[in-house]
Amino acid sequence: MKLGVVILAAGLGKRMRSSLPKVLHPLAGRPLLGHVLAAAQRLEPERIVVVHGHGGDRVKAAFADEDCAWVEQREQRGTGHAVIQALPAVEGLDRVLVLYGDVPLIAEETLRELVDSSRETPLGLLTAELGDPTGYGRILRDGDGRVVRIVEEKDATPEERRVAEINTGFLVADGASLVTWLGAISDDNAQGEYYLTDIIAIAADQGVRIATTQPAELAEIVGVNDRLQLAELERIYQRRVAEDLMRSGVTLADPARFDLRGRLVTEPDVSIDINVIIEGEVQLGAGVRIGPNSILKDCVIGSGTEVMANSVIEGARVGANARIGPFARLRPDALLADETHVGNFVEIKKSRLGHGSKANHLTYLGDAEIGAGVNVGAGTITCNYDGANKSKTLIGDGAFIGSNTALVAPVSVGPGATIGAGSVISKDAPADALTLSRARQTTLQGWVRPTKKS
Amino acid sequence: MKLGVVILAAGLGKRMRSSLPKVLHPLAGRPLLGHVLAAAQRLEPERIVVVHGHGGDRVKAAFADEDCAWVEQREQRGTGHAVIQALPAVEGLDRVLVLYGDVPLIAEETLRELVDSSRETPLGLLTAELGDPTGYGRILRDGDGRVVRIVEEKDATPEERRVAEINTGFLVADGASLVTWLGAISDDNAQGEYYLTDIIAIAADQGVRIATTQPAELAEIVGVNDRLQLAELERIYQRRVAEDLMRSGVTLADPARFDLRGRLVTEPDVSIDINVIIEGEVQLGAGVRIGPNSILKDCVIGSGTEVMANSVIEGARVGANARIGPFARLRPDALLADETHVGNFVEIKKSRLGHGSKANHLTYLGDAEIGAGVNVGAGTITCNYDGANKSKTLIGDGAFIGSNTALVAPVSVGPGATIGAGSVISKDAPADALTLSRARQTTLQGWVRPTKKS
Amino acid sequence: MKLGVVILAAGLGKRMRSSLPKVLHPLAGRPLLGHVLAAAQRLEPERIVVVHGHGGDRVKAAFADEDCAWVEQREQRGTGHAVIQALPAVEGLDRVLVLYGDVPLIAEETLRELVDSSRETPLGLLTAELGDPTGYGRILRDGDGRVVRIVEEKDATPEERRVAEINTGFLVADGASLVTWLGAISDDNAQGEYYLTDIIAIAADQGVRIATTQPAELAEIVGVNDRLQLAELERIYQRRVAEDLMRSGVTLADPARFDLRGRLVTEPDVSIDINVIIEGEVQLGAGVRIGPNSILKDCVIGSGTEVMANSVIEGARVGANARIGPFARLRPDALLADETHVGNFVEIKKSRLGHGSKANHLTYLGDAEIGAGVNVGAGTITCNYDGANKSKTLIGDGAFIGSNTALVAPVSVGPGATIGAGSVISKDAPADALTLSRARQTTLQGWVRPTKKS
Repeated sequence: MKLGVVILAAGLGKRMRSSLPKVLHPLAGRPLLGHVLAAAQRLEPERIVVVHGHGGDRVKAAFADEDCAWVEQREQRGTGHAVIQALPAVEGLDRVLVLYGDVPLIAEETLRELVDSSRETPLGLLTAELGDPTGYGRILRDGDGRVVRIVEEKDATPEERRVAEINTGFLVADGASLVTWLGAISDDNAQGEYYLTDIIAIAADQGVRIATTQPAELAEIVGVNDRLQLAELERIYQRRVAEDLMRSGVTLADPARFDLRGRLVTEPDVSIDINVIIEGEVQLGAGVRIGPNSILKDCVIGSGTEVMANSVIEGARVGANARIGPFARLRPDALLADETHVGNFVEIKKSRLGHGSKANHLTYLGDAEIGAGVNVGAGTITCNYDGANKSKTLIGDGAFIGSNTALVAPVSVGPGATIGAGSVISKDAPADALTLSRARQTTLQGWVRPTKKS
Repeated sequence: MKLGVVILAAGLGKRMRSSLPKVLHPLAGRPLLGHVLAAAQRLEPERIVVVHGHGGDRVKAAFADEDCAWVEQREQRGTGHAVIQALPAVEGLDRVLVLYGDVPLIAEETLRELVDSSRETPLGLLTAELGDPTGYGRILRDGDGRVVRIVEEKDATPEERRVAEINTGFLVADGASLVTWLGAISDDNAQGEYYLTDIIAIAADQGVRIATTQPAELAEIVGVNDRLQLAELERIYQRRVAEDLMRSGVTLADPARFDLRGRLVTEPDVSIDINVIIEGEVQLGAGVRIGPNSILKDCVIGSGTEVMANSVIEGARVGANARIGPFARLRPDALLADETHVGNFVEIKKSRLGHGSKANHLTYLGDAEIGAGVNVGAGTITCNYDGANKSKTLIGDGAFIGSNTALVAPVSVGPGATIGAGSVISKDAPADALTLSRARQTTLQGWVRPTKKS
Repeated sequence: MKLGVVILAAGLGKRMRSSLPKVLHPLAGRPLLGHVLAAAQRLEPERIVVVHGHGGDRVKAAFADEDCAWVEQREQRGTGHAVIQALPAVEGLDRVLVLYGDVPLIAEETLRELVDSSRETPLGLLTAELGDPTGYGRILRDGDGRVVRIVEEKDATPEERRVAEINTGFLVADGASLVTWLGAISDDNAQGEYYLTDIIAIAADQGVRIATTQPAELAEIVGVNDRLQLAELERIYQRRVAEDLMRSGVTLADPARFDLRGRLVTEPDVSIDINVIIEGEVQLGAGVRIGPNSILKDCVIGSGTEVMANSVIEGARVGANARIGPFARLRPDALLADETHVGNFVEIKKSRLGHGSKANHLTYLGDAEIGAGVNVGAGTITCNYDGANKSKTLIGDGAFIGSNTALVAPVSVGPGATIGAGSVISKDAPADALTLSRARQTTLQGWVRPTKKS
């Protein structure tokens, strides 16, 4: 069965009050439409067609790498009209599944069931039972339980309004039938729009049996119309993610204070304290502990390592049994070997730190290659930028960099070298020797302290 | 219609277990009484009278700038007694509205409706329907629906207890009638107190029609008696604020982790990550992004600027398209031009940073005037304090300050000047030249490293 | 009445998906079993026996200091089998109370009532009424209300399933009777296990009256089987703790964002902002304010002191009216006198700071003894480690340490001494004089800035 997926993404989203097209607003760090596209892709359809609205260039640009077709709906003339725009792009396919770019939490499983439900019949609907169905179109069935039509809230009789089963908008249809049915709908209604929903009554009138399936969770069918709903779905998504992680063996100190905006791969016994954010692709080894208020993005943390409170890590790779933070900042291409220690108010960028090396206090290491067993004293700065170019600092194994040292790159410090505290090292320091630059200490006895000026 | 407002603020608040008078406890950063005063002021009454208790000096001092009269209730003899103290101060006014200093969320709209309800009749009550009215005085009505009296829980028959409509305590009364009615109440009850509530039965007995109105939200009528209730109202307030912001087009990553303690003015498409606190008066330009765990107080952030995680900003002004943080600290009178960059572990106080200038790492800038296009290297310190006085550091456009430099103020660095890394600059550095202070680098070959003492 | 307590702690906890034994998973920073042991100890029993499972060494090691006996249950053959292993250890005691190492929130009061209920009869059960009892064993009673047996969900008739009273597993039994009853249970059931529950039917058959009591809160009887339940109990525990603190007079900005993992002792009017974590033993004096995102562990903070945002304090002692943070890090044995100021990006370890002394910016103080009235300039580093040994820095009263100074320990700065900015002080600096080490400032006029390499 050749499946086509049409994603309606042309809505203006006025209530978002945003210059950003609605479907580009992020949920868990990814545009709404990205979630829907991902769900669609997991179905492995023949084709995905996204119907975008006027000025959809930003939307297209955001998904330039995705394998999908783009169709413009120039005027906002209803969901039926939108799907009609996509028909040429899905011609010849067996089934067409209609999704919505602003309904992001729809689950792959739910879609599979919906598609499967249409194997024996040309039309399948996703419906849901709501405790309070007010506002939704109700599914009307005949005495045999067959769907006969959908009645909108405003047109419903009091009895019809008591029906709890509602139309979610998601549907799958036989490709050829869909063309016929859409050809039969009209815009002869209050809004002057073509409603996709109208095909249901047409199909039912033709005696078509309409299959119905339900989502596992109601959140799957909730659309985003304003930023309150966006925040609500964000929390539902995060709660779901947190529960999956806990079930897989991750300890979360507070699942309501955890945010995953990407993908987290964990080995056993990872423990994550409150208020942590994980972004991009993150891997945490066995027994890794992440301290409160830490933010990790696109990084790999080796087993047994502890990231202490208030650390920010991005694009870094940390070995096993390391100790990072609190207040550590690891930036892209910080590569820390096993058993390294990086302490408070230390920033590391594009640098290697060898096995067991330490930089514990108030330090900036940029463009440095640091060997094993090196002690980088408090207040050490690699002067890697001369205003035009970046240069490298090389520090050999076992070197000891005294505190408050400036290493003026390009410069190298030999293995086993010791640098005296407070030095400015602008020439290479040889191995196994003490190198320093220090002005003579003098005392002015007669000196009188300044006094407070009035 | 001349309106007077009497705010009862004499309660001891024993259950707060605090040395601070109850009405001074902050909700959203402002004393409870401040919220009530603000609501009263928005009604533009002729007069506001606050009835304070014994030793109300701290309360008066906290609102020294407010345009209101203060009346002392020397003994705690009930709400009726409290209003009696205020009568001289509202003499001659048409209507008197009674508010409570510990019921902070009362809304202006609700008060307007209450006041309006008394245009045709001399007494208006604010009542509410509660799911569980236990503990409250119930509103008793006759067959025609007219209020006849209020019965307290303990005096109520089982049937009366089933009444869901309760007395909130808020009322508005004709000024002259109020004097008469209050003259008729007595302290002949278990507590030996004069209850304001008793005027209702007196008025009803006189055949007065009592108007009733209801608040839009139940939280409006909730009083603070202990710190649990304070925390509860704080969260209700914050939730309300968060929803208003989201409706106006602000993205909040988690509305349950956002705190506004003051006033936030936003342009379109502001995005605020988790756990942010906004205090005082804050303005955020279009497209501003505020990173997680950041705290902003009394500041203006220009459009397109990003404040990254864990930054603390107070009393600062930041231009457009700047990049601040993570771990940045901007203190009062930090004035940052457009496209400036302030990075991690950088503190800026009372300093200007010109267009496009950068201070990215481990730096302290205090009392400095820094031009455009300046690069301030890592570990730069302005030595602005000599123990007695603060002095200024001036840095011209396009200067480059090498890392780990101490600028001993008063000092100036000319435009286009370069300062060598690790320098102590205590005399002015001329424009377009390289200035540095550096001791000769030497190596001691024979030197032996210290060994661990037992 | 001699009481013995048997704690069953042999469960594997497969659903935790952890290499850590289930009862060692922390709740509020303490292993689950630790909570149960503490509840048991508060009953002051004659003896506490913990039944651990195969390889219980880690469990025993974690409680090496506790006064309890350890018994191994080699095979997992049911709760009855587990208690049988403990019988020799409680021989001769009047009553035996059975607790569960993975049911951590059981309250002392509930246990006291349960034990008291068995004074007149040899068997007492803790039962609970659940809204939805599905899955639990139901308590069956005869027409006189006497417990006759417990029926498991799967064996229950539809009528029995409607019984809301369930078995919690907690029970207390006469020591000698327990031996008899346990001798009568069998493993002739689907699981092939010995169930402790079976003693109830046996006792009832013997005509024993079975006393029942109920817990004050349902959370007391909830067991931890996976990390979701662990997180749920953690939040219940934290909510309870937060409410107790608020009732006692502590202001919490958001009780849902507060974590106590240990013990907090407070004087009046302590105020704790959002997202604070308290660990170990912490004392906060009157009027102390703790800023958002701060973490305090094993420390004492004097009255009137403010800890500002994003500070991390461990093992420190801070005097009264001090000002710490934001972004301060106090490490073990940081001893700060009254009215000290420690500012942003400052780390203090094993150091004394005398009355009124200040270290406000970007500083590391380790192994230092600093007098009163000292001003430590920005960027000051104590070079306390030479790669092998730690040495001390002594700074006398009233000294002024210029910014960006390195103090190479062992070294002393006399009272009233001034150190020039940017100095490296490796020899003692005398009192009341200006000491500095500074290279001459020079300017190279002809120097040409580097240009960007292609």
